Amino acid sequence: MKVFSLALLLATFQLTGNSQSNKNLPIDSNFISVSKKITNFALSDTFGYNLLRDLCAFGGRLSGSKNLLMVEDFLFEKISGMGFDTVYTQTVTTTNWQRGNVEKFVLRGKNSWSDIKFEIAALGGSVGTGGLLRADIIEISDFDELEHRKDEIKGKIVFFNFPFDQKVYDSFSSYGPAVNFRVNGAHRAAKYGAVAVLIRSVASNFDDVPHTGTLRYIDTIPKIPAVSLGVRSSVFLSGILKKRAMGEITQPLLFEMELNCKTVGACEVKNLIAEIWGGEKKNEVIVVGGHLDSWDKGEGAHDDGAGCVQSIEVLHLIKKMGIKPKRTIRAVLFANEENGLAGAKGYAKVTQEDIKKHLAAIESDRGGFAPRGFTADASPEVVLKMTSWLPYFTMTGIDWFKKGGGGADISQIKGAKALIGFYPDSQRYFDVHHSENDVFTAVNHRELELGSASITILTLLLSEFGL
Amino acid sequence: MKVFSLALLLATFQLTGNSQSNKNLPIDSNFISVSKKITNFALSDTFGYNLLRDLCAFGGRLSGSKNLLMVEDFLFEKISGMGFDTVYTQTVTTTNWQRGNVEKFVLRGKNSWSDIKFEIAALGGSVGTGGLLRADIIEISDFDELEHRKDEIKGKIVFFNFPFDQKVYDSFSSYGPAVNFRVNGAHRAAKYGAVAVLIRSVASNFDDVPHTGTLRYIDTIPKIPAVSLGVRSSVFLSGILKKRAMGEITQPLLFEMELNCKTVGACEVKNLIAEIWGGEKKNEVIVVGGHLDSWDKGEGAHDDGAGCVQSIEVLHLIKKMGIKPKRTIRAVLFANEENGLAGAKGYAKVTQEDIKKHLAAIESDRGGFAPRGFTADASPEVVLKMTSWLPYFTMTGIDWFKKGGGGADISQIKGAKALIGFYPDSQRYFDVHHSENDVFTAVNHRELELGSASITILTLLLSEFGL
Repeated sequence: MKVFSLALLLATFQLTGNSQSNKNLPIDSNFISVSKKITNFALSDTFGYNLLRDLCAFGGRLSGSKNLLMVEDFLFEKISGMGFDTVYTQTVTTTNWQRGNVEKFVLRGKNSWSDIKFEIAALGGSVGTGGLLRADIIEISDFDELEHRKDEIKGKIVFFNFPFDQKVYDSFSSYGPAVNFRVNGAHRAAKYGAVAVLIRSVASNFDDVPHTGTLRYIDTIPKIPAVSLGVRSSVFLSGILKKRAMGEITQPLLFEMELNCKTVGACEVKNLIAEIWGGEKKNEVIVVGGHLDSWDKGEGAHDDGAGCVQSIEVLHLIKKMGIKPKRTIRAVLFANEENGLAGAKGYAKVTQEDIKKHLAAIESDRGGFAPRGFTADASPEVVLKMTSWLPYFTMTGIDWFKKGGGGADISQIKGAKALIGFYPDSQRYFDVHHSENDVFTAVNHRELELGSASITILTLLLSEFGL
Repeated sequence: MKVFSLALLLATFQLTGNSQSNKNLPIDSNFISVSKKITNFALSDTFGYNLLRDLCAFGGRLSGSKNLLMVEDFLFEKISGMGFDTVYTQTVTTTNWQRGNVEKFVLRGKNSWSDIKFEIAALGGSVGTGGLLRADIIEISDFDELEHRKDEIKGKIVFFNFPFDQKVYDSFSSYGPAVNFRVNGAHRAAKYGAVAVLIRSVASNFDDVPHTGTLRYIDTIPKIPAVSLGVRSSVFLSGILKKRAMGEITQPLLFEMELNCKTVGACEVKNLIAEIWGGEKKNEVIVVGGHLDSWDKGEGAHDDGAGCVQSIEVLHLIKKMGIKPKRTIRAVLFANEENGLAGAKGYAKVTQEDIKKHLAAIESDRGGFAPRGFTADASPEVVLKMTSWLPYFTMTGIDWFKKGGGGADISQIKGAKALIGFYPDSQRYFDVHHSENDVFTAVNHRELELGSASITILTLLLSEFGL
């Protein structure tokens, strides 16, 4: 395909579509035509959606897994054949945690057929139980209660039953307080002698699918096993414990837990990078990225297969439009966001000099849902400038730019004028996040593609008009 | 529960939450608190979502069906127990069309085991085939091609293979052109002697579930059977026909169709109405409504169970907030929107005098998805006034008010200052619309409840501040 500059493309629009009356239109009116063309093409071409289907067919992509190795090869080959200016990888090292094949949490009945089995998933990084663990359970609402009841913890399994706050619009703001127990519950409870930790899944729906995710151990405190429990199982377990506390259950409750998950050492994982070089300012870089790894539960479709295929689709769309951008557009599929951030750190290290030339970075790691806006870690002036670009997004559903976080993977790109996070509708993300619900069929093709179009339009605006 | 006026509630907010510094705040600041309270309550209470589960458990609610009769009884009893000022019904008459139990469309193979069966659904109102119909098929893209090839139509099944336009953001704008063939395809083809019509399903996804919907016959033209074909079946059939046209298939193609659907006469259906009377202007009415009937395929969850439960939830939320509104709020669950509009027409007829007192009406009939905005059939001044209310909706996701249609059911309410349509995100609606995909599990509780909150807030703004 013949490649020509955006200026030329815009001129072409001026000379064809608007040849009669609009020769002196400011350039933006024509960029609106480009935005529409990009959106139309993304929605009908569905390149990203089809690629996501292929990606998800490999299953979960945890760092160190065979699935991830296969996906790295598959995508490298795929992207290498797309005619970009360069495609390369960066290898980094991270820990290799494996779930194992035993995940059991049972309330023993009188006979084995009357056992009550709960739905659980080991948290990422958890140690195993080293055989069968038998202990009583204490339910704790939050860390204040933990401190208050620290003398009752020893020898017990601590059950943090902190519900996801359904009341607020932005479900990311409900995620923060709840995930605190997943990340810090184990070491906080172990400090007072707990033998294991159960966490109510950080989830916005009412099913019984456990949601995993990473935890943090502290070197000076014993590492104890930690698992998440499905929401329904959590409500049920809480009911049993409350009945016992009320004296309605008097017989002893015998709980058994068994996990054989473990950290087996180090493994190598890769950042996958593709570029379209800038025609005028090749050394100035705009990154668009997501992370390639995922948890082993589900297929990592929304988290973050969506962000990966959208990042590749940005380059695909720019190429299909026949645009040679002013600045270099670099798609980065970061390694190991879920349990180490080794890819993001490695990217910043490898590109230490180059990183100063980053004008901006856009991350997509909030799911492949319908676009709503962009949050930006940037000066108020930059946010205002981007807000003035809203008319270019009428076809994609982007209604706002706001000050806010860019994302974990691009957070290491210091000095860029804007670290931007794509913000799709957040209502369904925590129904699927880190769980078996996060599969290809939970992604809607139109929602995903509108995201690709939105990110492409913003990337081109940054490339052509700067900040 | 003690009921007090919104003014009093606002005053209470002023005297409690803001007692120190904000005694002289304009009333709107306090209404923002009310909006937040409504949203928080809707999201955590999930009254509407739970009611939708009950509603959908009855199955599809086509006019004349036993399911609909049962739902009318269930809901009347349910709503009557909610403590509203009045609950009543309006009985109207419409035609009773029944799908029957034979829906067959087959390309005959050499043996019966090599038959190719296609996924079809009779269009609502279609006549049956009166036994086995054998005819050849002609594929037609649009009505222009039909006119051009009118001499080839006689004795054939016309296959209108008009795809849903995926390119544009607002999927309602793609629905219009495609649904034209579903509504008018049969009489247009029958005019030239067609014996039946096949319509590519009006659907935005790529599965093979046929989407039904109403058709129009014209009295002077023979009524021929009309069915919709799943999208994949449509693509497949088109491929076969193209191969024949190219000479790649030379053996005769034997198509067989059989339908025993029929119109069996008239039936009675009901509008269900509940009111909370206005404290100051009881005679001024604000309608919030959806339609209770649905197609028989699926459970009518998004179309329009969502709108029904949202309308009831508006009253529920107002009551739970302890608000006595200035004007009367009337929830109307309209009968027979899908194939006759008898409920909407009946409502306008019965309330002929009363209807002049309608200040505004809000309809929710675009699915229970995440809120985006409201379209209003109103003067520019009224749209501008409502736009000034946007700050009250920051917690629900409403980003705009625009001039646009209100909806089919409220269209009969002539003279109201605003006929308003709730506009949720449109990307997934035509994946489920009029098909077996439209089930309770396709509705997200947070998206649905944010819709209820949005409509409640707008209803109260209309009631308290007028237009």
